[in-house]
Amino acid sequence: MIPSQLVKEIKGVVGAENVLEDEVDLLGFSYDASENMKMPDLVVRPGSTQEVVEIVKLAVKNKIPLIPRGSGTNLCGGTIPVLGGIIVDMQRMRNIVELDEENLCVTVEAGIKLLDLNKYLQRKGFFFPVDPGSSNSATIGGMISNNSSGMHSLKYGSTKDNLLELEVVLPNGEIISVGSKAPKQVSGYDLKSLFVGAEGTLGIITKATLKIKPFKETFYLVVTAAFKSLEDAGRAISRIIKEDIPVSALEFMDKYTVRSVKEFTGLDLPLDAEAVVLVECSGHEASVKYYIDEAEKILREEKAYIVEKAKNIVEAEDLWKGRQSSFGAIARVKPFLIQGDPSVPVSKLPEFVRGIEEIAKKNNVIVVTYGHAGEGNLHPTVVTDERDKDELERGFKAMGEIYRLAISLGGTSSGEHGVGLSKAKYMSYEHGEKVLNVMRQIKKVFDPFNIMNPGKMSL
Amino acid sequence: MIPSQLVKEIKGVVGAENVLEDEVDLLGFSYDASENMKMPDLVVRPGSTQEVVEIVKLAVKNKIPLIPRGSGTNLCGGTIPVLGGIIVDMQRMRNIVELDEENLCVTVEAGIKLLDLNKYLQRKGFFFPVDPGSSNSATIGGMISNNSSGMHSLKYGSTKDNLLELEVVLPNGEIISVGSKAPKQVSGYDLKSLFVGAEGTLGIITKATLKIKPFKETFYLVVTAAFKSLEDAGRAISRIIKEDIPVSALEFMDKYTVRSVKEFTGLDLPLDAEAVVLVECSGHEASVKYYIDEAEKILREEKAYIVEKAKNIVEAEDLWKGRQSSFGAIARVKPFLIQGDPSVPVSKLPEFVRGIEEIAKKNNVIVVTYGHAGEGNLHPTVVTDERDKDELERGFKAMGEIYRLAISLGGTSSGEHGVGLSKAKYMSYEHGEKVLNVMRQIKKVFDPFNIMNPGKMSL
Repeated sequence: MIPSQLVKEIKGVVGAENVLEDEVDLLGFSYDASENMKMPDLVVRPGSTQEVVEIVKLAVKNKIPLIPRGSGTNLCGGTIPVLGGIIVDMQRMRNIVELDEENLCVTVEAGIKLLDLNKYLQRKGFFFPVDPGSSNSATIGGMISNNSSGMHSLKYGSTKDNLLELEVVLPNGEIISVGSKAPKQVSGYDLKSLFVGAEGTLGIITKATLKIKPFKETFYLVVTAAFKSLEDAGRAISRIIKEDIPVSALEFMDKYTVRSVKEFTGLDLPLDAEAVVLVECSGHEASVKYYIDEAEKILREEKAYIVEKAKNIVEAEDLWKGRQSSFGAIARVKPFLIQGDPSVPVSKLPEFVRGIEEIAKKNNVIVVTYGHAGEGNLHPTVVTDERDKDELERGFKAMGEIYRLAISLGGTSSGEHGVGLSKAKYMSYEHGEKVLNVMRQIKKVFDPFNIMNPGKMSL
Repeated sequence: MIPSQLVKEIKGVVGAENVLEDEVDLLGFSYDASENMKMPDLVVRPGSTQEVVEIVKLAVKNKIPLIPRGSGTNLCGGTIPVLGGIIVDMQRMRNIVELDEENLCVTVEAGIKLLDLNKYLQRKGFFFPVDPGSSNSATIGGMISNNSSGMHSLKYGSTKDNLLELEVVLPNGEIISVGSKAPKQVSGYDLKSLFVGAEGTLGIITKATLKIKPFKETFYLVVTAAFKSLEDAGRAISRIIKEDIPVSALEFMDKYTVRSVKEFTGLDLPLDAEAVVLVECSGHEASVKYYIDEAEKILREEKAYIVEKAKNIVEAEDLWKGRQSSFGAIARVKPFLIQGDPSVPVSKLPEFVRGIEEIAKKNNVIVVTYGHAGEGNLHPTVVTDERDKDELERGFKAMGEIYRLAISLGGTSSGEHGVGLSKAKYMSYEHGEKVLNVMRQIKKVFDPFNIMNPGKMSL
């Protein structure tokens, strides 16, 4: 519970219309895209960096948790107020501060949606190239706090790779700026990278300067290949990466995903395949044609039994639609999805996918697997029904085993979704207590009273 | 002075033959490639991570500074034992631990030279793509500690972008491993990036897993363009970047550099040019040809009055030789060079170069300027003679003004050399005291007794 005097003070900062206290209003902020849920005590919607500073000062004074939140699309409970406190809804801070065409960058407030940013940029002839699955609703602040990536990070990198400068309000109420518009900067510690992926545990990101790209009509080609053996598919993926073919995306669907997608989209996908691999190349026409041929050669050499190459852009989009609809297609099977994002070294993919199958069998749950194979990053997804409590429990158990398997293969529990609540329990196994203790001490430097998104990441 | 009992204990750890105490031996470790100099009390050459651990424990117990050192090519005094203490010469730790061809990575001990690593990789059909100017002698540990980059970071990124995993001995004697072979990892704070560019102030890097590339015969083309106006050259550079032409290098030489290089190499360079710009594209032949034509078009549109395109690889290498010999060419004018590495937003290059000229004039010193213009990173170099104390002083004063100018233009005092001693005094101006205090507190987390390379970076 927030003392009424404090609520009054907060209203004084942001205006009463930007403070939510009623249960019905708070409910929408009690969950995200994960399985977690907890009611906040208050929601506050700051409209400026200065208002964020005032809120932070009041929260510190009263030792009340602050949980920064964008659109709440987090898949791991990163924005759940697990210890209560105040949700800081950043979505009013959605201004575009500056478009710097000369230096190919844009400065925005953290609450802007990627979709809105890209709509604006498109009108100006640019785009921001990071495209997470949640690109329709994700905010830039959320993307930075989780280092979002997506299908095309093989070509464009993750959010961190496309970030020049950050403005952050620290828990001591100070506003700092880290990074610069100079493309290279090696003076002092890389604090910018420390805030990326910190899930709001070190401060509140209020502004960011992002690298952008000029929008050009891009030539691209897609080839899909079906394999009767997982090992063959894995070897093909490994070889495309190992031979350094500049693909813009390299995706994988297991047989369960193929079935769901086929049913959902009506696309002509092979039901007897163990795995389907999609390769996309984009850029200069002659080089795209050359490299997609190289990729196709490898796919055939590794025993793909069906290989379809898009002959034109409409066909390419059709093939691509298959992969992009995976999530929706799977959700039709059963309504509740536990989606993971473990990442392993690319060479370990076949072993990992086999392991996932065994874990599913052992726990008697359905796990469908697809994802960004070119970066070893998969989305094993337990398809379940939340009304079946026993199945749900087995689903979470299976997902835990999957994370541990990824880590034991030299990988990580999170390739792109972050840790939040759902994966906090694997932090020690993944990093070891020594490293985790360093992280805890770093959090203390910034946040001695542990008010910034407490209870997350096992910190 | 190191107590003789401690020297004895250190010899017990690494063997007497790996401890240097004589003044004549220590002398070689008293300087690096900068203007700084200070004798260490001792030099120790560990042969394994475990030996590093033992040395660290002894140093902490006795509160004696430890200064990790690779080849000592640092241009900012990063390896100078400014407060005395023990130089930890890492060059015995030069083993290749594992070549993982499947995952395109190699694990090495930190003391290995880049040159030796690349010789090994070449035999296996691979290479490490980061090529700093000191690539003949730089060690991997030094490159990581300074986040080295170089001419081709436009295409391949800096050391940080090519690093998967690090083993570090912390000042508390613990060995930690951060990062993983999974290409994407977003679980917990990015400690790996914190060690990169930390200049040995947080711990001793003992091992690293680096991304490598398959070696292929690469097609490349170079075009050089001479401009009568600095502003025209700047606009051409800006446009090539802004139009997102995938160049592999984009270099700049001012008129003074052109003259030195011409004299040194005998290459046919235009003496009446205000600026010469070099553009390199590499990759697939058809796309290289296409993009180099695009670049050439821009160069001509921005009023380059001489444009030479290499017709073949021999010619391209000739043109390239010009830029690569800049440092040696300039050193012939006067023997002592104060080389800087400020970086500014690309659009600010003309203003920056003009400002450098004014600063040189005001301080009555010769400053030649060349560098990695495509990333806004220049090497203004004061050409002086260390025997002329007055000129030397004016040279350092000019360089200080150049750093401040870069920072005031939204840039940084260091694009690729680091801070060390030489640039410590600009840290507060660049980052502000608030940010610097955060850095100081982070150092304290790792190194409460301040034994790791103390006195550097204004920490």
